Amino acid sequence: MAIKILNIGKSKSNYLVKGVEDYLTRLGKYAIVQWVELQDARKKHYKTVDELKKLEADIFLSELKPSTFLIGLDEKGKGFTSRDFAKQLNNWTRENGDIAFVIGGAFGFHDTLYKRMNAKISLSNMTLSHQMVRLLLVEQIYRGYSILNGEPYHND
Amino acid sequence: MAIKILNIGKSKSNYLVKGVEDYLTRLGKYAIVQWVELQDARKKHYKTVDELKKLEADIFLSELKPSTFLIGLDEKGKGFTSRDFAKQLNNWTRENGDIAFVIGGAFGFHDTLYKRMNAKISLSNMTLSHQMVRLLLVEQIYRGYSILNGEPYHND
Repeated sequence: MAIKILNIGKSKSNYLVKGVEDYLTRLGKYAIVQWVELQDARKKHYKTVDELKKLEADIFLSELKPSTFLIGLDEKGKGFTSRDFAKQLNNWTRENGDIAFVIGGAFGFHDTLYKRMNAKISLSNMTLSHQMVRLLLVEQIYRGYSILNGEPYHND
Repeated sequence: MAIKILNIGKSKSNYLVKGVEDYLTRLGKYAIVQWVELQDARKKHYKTVDELKKLEADIFLSELKPSTFLIGLDEKGKGFTSRDFAKQLNNWTRENGDIAFVIGGAFGFHDTLYKRMNAKISLSNMTLSHQMVRLLLVEQIYRGYSILNGEPYHND
């Protein structure tokens, strides 16, 4: 069982990089979590936003095994409380083995990627930058595991 | 018109301090935003959690003018989309002049502080650490002003 988190492009703000690293380290005791930052599509390879999204979709899809359960981070996705997210995370990994979260680029996902998704989740009703989604997702996965393990996750 | 953001205790994670600083700097072009980190109550001054919360409430209340419109960050508060939050922010500042946001300590708010609040908001259905709430709040205030000013806030 492994959890993959797929991102397109590097994290730009140094403080968000540090935050993500912090949670990935702490997650190590609970699960195998692979953080993947895929290279942006090069400008010479696309002309339109749709072409860019298709290229990004192809890049993401090349990282997925056919059996991997794919969860997209999407504004229109399902919202959870942290406790319900923990349960859902537990069910997903138990039933599917490998799961992957995918965080889109600035223009969102191409339809081919939407069609591949097995679930869509949203972390807030508010619009979050893709960089902030990265931090919040690892924080909620960490919180989820601490809930599942009955360990209090102090608000520090 | 000024916006005060009241916190109890210092930010502990360096990356979150950097993130908050980043957004406060960027907010400078839109509004006067005062970031206040109040000193934790000292252990010798309280015996129970309720006494601690009461002490924290007194510390917060000493920072508020009677006319200040107070908004508590609370899990049971109202959720917003970023666009609705921008409108609400605009209404609050237009109708009330000075407004203040208050982010609680690890044990939440004392009733005396709840009674002083004019509104309660929640940034997500998920449980967020108080440190994360700090970052997300300044990010959403910044996003709100960029929406109100018709400036695209790129997801960077």
